Amino acid sequence: MTLADRWLLPDGVDEALPKQAAKIEHLRRTLLNLHESWGYQLVIPPLIEYLDSLLIGAGSDLEIETFKVIDQLSGRLMGIRADFTSQVARIDAHCLKNDGVQRLSYCGSVLRTTPAGLDGTRSPIQLGAELYGHSGIESDLEILSLMLDTLTHAGLSKVVLDVGHIDVVRGVMAASGLSSDQEAKLADLYRAKGLPELEAFLATTDLDENAKQWLSALPRLCGGVEVLDRAEAALSGVSNSVSNALAQIRAVAEVVWTRFASVGLHFDLSDMESYSYHTGLVFAAYVPGHGNAVARGGRYNFIGEVFGRSRPATGFSTDVKTLVSLADVTVSERSSVLAPAAHNDALWQKIQSLRLEGYRVIQQLDDSTNASDFDFQLVADGSDWKLVSVK
Amino acid sequence: MTLADRWLLPDGVDEALPKQAAKIEHLRRTLLNLHESWGYQLVIPPLIEYLDSLLIGAGSDLEIETFKVIDQLSGRLMGIRADFTSQVARIDAHCLKNDGVQRLSYCGSVLRTTPAGLDGTRSPIQLGAELYGHSGIESDLEILSLMLDTLTHAGLSKVVLDVGHIDVVRGVMAASGLSSDQEAKLADLYRAKGLPELEAFLATTDLDENAKQWLSALPRLCGGVEVLDRAEAALSGVSNSVSNALAQIRAVAEVVWTRFASVGLHFDLSDMESYSYHTGLVFAAYVPGHGNAVARGGRYNFIGEVFGRSRPATGFSTDVKTLVSLADVTVSERSSVLAPAAHNDALWQKIQSLRLEGYRVIQQLDDSTNASDFDFQLVADGSDWKLVSVK
Repeated sequence: MTLADRWLLPDGVDEALPKQAAKIEHLRRTLLNLHESWGYQLVIPPLIEYLDSLLIGAGSDLEIETFKVIDQLSGRLMGIRADFTSQVARIDAHCLKNDGVQRLSYCGSVLRTTPAGLDGTRSPIQLGAELYGHSGIESDLEILSLMLDTLTHAGLSKVVLDVGHIDVVRGVMAASGLSSDQEAKLADLYRAKGLPELEAFLATTDLDENAKQWLSALPRLCGGVEVLDRAEAALSGVSNSVSNALAQIRAVAEVVWTRFASVGLHFDLSDMESYSYHTGLVFAAYVPGHGNAVARGGRYNFIGEVFGRSRPATGFSTDVKTLVSLADVTVSERSSVLAPAAHNDALWQKIQSLRLEGYRVIQQLDDSTNASDFDFQLVADGSDWKLVSVK
Repeated sequence: MTLADRWLLPDGVDEALPKQAAKIEHLRRTLLNLHESWGYQLVIPPLIEYLDSLLIGAGSDLEIETFKVIDQLSGRLMGIRADFTSQVARIDAHCLKNDGVQRLSYCGSVLRTTPAGLDGTRSPIQLGAELYGHSGIESDLEILSLMLDTLTHAGLSKVVLDVGHIDVVRGVMAASGLSSDQEAKLADLYRAKGLPELEAFLATTDLDENAKQWLSALPRLCGGVEVLDRAEAALSGVSNSVSNALAQIRAVAEVVWTRFASVGLHFDLSDMESYSYHTGLVFAAYVPGHGNAVARGGRYNFIGEVFGRSRPATGFSTDVKTLVSLADVTVSERSSVLAPAAHNDALWQKIQSLRLEGYRVIQQLDDSTNASDFDFQLVADGSDWKLVSVK
C-alpha cells in the first residue's frame, strides 16, 4: 500500500481542517442558538439504531442510502443514520409524553452509501427542526420561516424558495378517476417533465375532458407568482382539497413577501420530488450557482404511526458544511499570547487567568513557534509576569 | 414486530432528550472553548474512512472495536471510527504542513462494536486534544494539565490521577535479558497482578538475581507517592531509560501538586493497560463511584510513521456524555415569552427582535400551550406589542 492510498478519503467523504472546522463550529452554534430562541429543544439521537426503527415511514430511497452492520450483541441488523427525521419522530412518539405541540431540533453527522446530488457528499452535518402535534397552516408557516431565518443567519443571500403542495397532484389525480396504472404512468411523465409525451398519453385515455385539461395544465403550472392565478383559474372546479392546497401556497407567498422580502419565489405544482414521503406543503431553498437545494422541508403527517402515535408533523433540514461553503462565515479570533514553557507557579497562574479572560495562550515548547505570529508575549517582570505587545 | 421492539435501542446505544442534550451541548462548547484558549485548533475528521487508514498504529483491539462496511463506490472496506487518534495523526502528518509543534482538538461521536468497560457504552461523544512535534516532558505536562483543566471545567471533583510510564516495564525487561517467551509470560502475569504466580515463575528461570529482584519489585510499585521513593531505590541500577522514566513521573507529581492541589495521585509502575500502544508517560483520571477512567492519555510517538511523517505525539481523550452524567452541569435558561400565532407584521418584528435579544419566543399554535409555563406574554397594545410578566 502506498502512502497516497493511506491518505485518500473515500469519495464523498471529507474532513475539516482548522480554518473550516472553526467556521462549521461557529455556524453550528449560531444556528442551534437561533433554534433555541424559537423554542426548539435540542435532542441527540444515536448514530446507530436497529434498522427496523430507522427506516420507518421513510420510503425505500432511505433504505438504499443507509449503511448496514450486524449487531454483534443481538445478531440484528443495525443502520448508521442517513437522516434524522425518523429518529426524531420516534423520540416525539415514544420518549416525550406530550400530546400538545412539540418543537425539536438536531445537528449531527449522517452517512449515505452513495453521493447525494451534485454536491457529491456522503457525510453531511445535518441540522434541522421538527414541529409535531399541529396540522394547521400556522405550523407550516413557522417551520418555513425558521428555515429562511436559518439561511439568513448563515449569511446566505439571493435565496429562491421553491414551493409546492402534495395535495395539488393528489387531488387532481383523485378527481380525474384514473386507474392505478394510469396514475403511475402520469407520475412518471410529471417526473420527466415531458409535455409532448403527456399530451400523447392523455389522448389515448378515455378520461373526461375536464380531467384531461387538469392533468395537462399541471406541469405547466410552474414559475413565478403568476402561476397561482393561473392555477386558481385552471383548477378551480377540481375539489376542496385542491382549492385548500392552493390557498395554503398563497399564504406561504404572503408570509415570504412580508417577512423575507429579499427571498425569490418559485412554484412548481407538479413537482414529484417529495411525492412518496410528504403529505402537504413542501418547500426547498436554492441559491445561485448551487444545483442542489440548500435546505428542504415540508409536512409529513402520520410518521409516528408505527411508533404508536400518529402525529401531524412538519420540519426542514440543511447541511452545515454546505452552508459554510456557500456563505461568508467570519469567526472572530482570540488575541494570542506566547508564553515561556517554564514550570513556574506565578507564570501558570497568569497564563490561566489570561485564558479565562478570553486570550489564546500558547507555551513555547521549542523554536518552531515565532513570537511574530502572536499579538502579545508574556515576559517576566521581577517575580510577576506582564503582557507585552508584539506589534 | 411489536411497538416495544421499534422503540428499543441496541445495548450500549443511547439518545439524549432535551434536558440532557442541553447539558451535553453546553459542556461541549465550554470544553472546546477551553481547548481553544490553550491554543488547540479544532479539526473535524470524517465519521468513516478506509479501514487501512483508520486502524494504523492502533493495535488489534481497535480493529475488533470497529464497525466495517463495504464502500459501494470502490468495493473497499471502510470503518466507522471507534477512536479519533489515528484520524488526527493522519491530519497532522498529511494535511497540515507544519514541522513544528501542532496542537489539535476534536469532539464527535464514535462507535464501538462491543460495550466498553463498566459504562457499557458503544456510542460515546469523544472529546480530546493531541500535541504533535515535541518529545520533551514539557508537552507531556501540557497535555496532562489540559486534561485536568478539562475535568475541572466539567465540574468534576475528587479526581484521582493514575500515572505510569511505559519505559519502566520496558526498561526492566530489556535489562533483565528475557527471552521473548519469558517477556510475553511476564506481561500476562503483570496484567493479572498475580504475585504468587509471578514468584513461582521467576523461580523457574535462570535470570540473574538483580533481574529477578527488579521483576519481582515491579508489581509492588503501586500506590501513593511513597512508591516513587521505593521505585528509585529498587530500580536505581537498571538503566538510564528507567531512571529517566522515574524522573518524568516525579515531574508529573510536582506539576499536579502545584497546579491541581485537589487532585489525588496514584502510581502503578507495572500497569500494562497501554503497553502495546503508548511509548512514554501514560495517565488516567478516575472519580469515586465510577469504575472506568473518565479521561485517559499519554505519549504515542511515531504514530504518523505510516502516513509518511513519524512525529512525537501525546494526547488525551474523554467522553462528554460520561462527564455530563458525573458532573453537575447547569445550563442557564433563556427567559421565555408566549406570543399569539397571528400573522401580523408588527408582531413578527417584535418577536424577531426579542429572539435576537436572547428571549425564547414561542408562538401559541393551540391550547396545548399554557401561558403559566412562560415568564412573559406578548400582548397587543394598540398597534404595538408589549411584554407582560406572567408571574
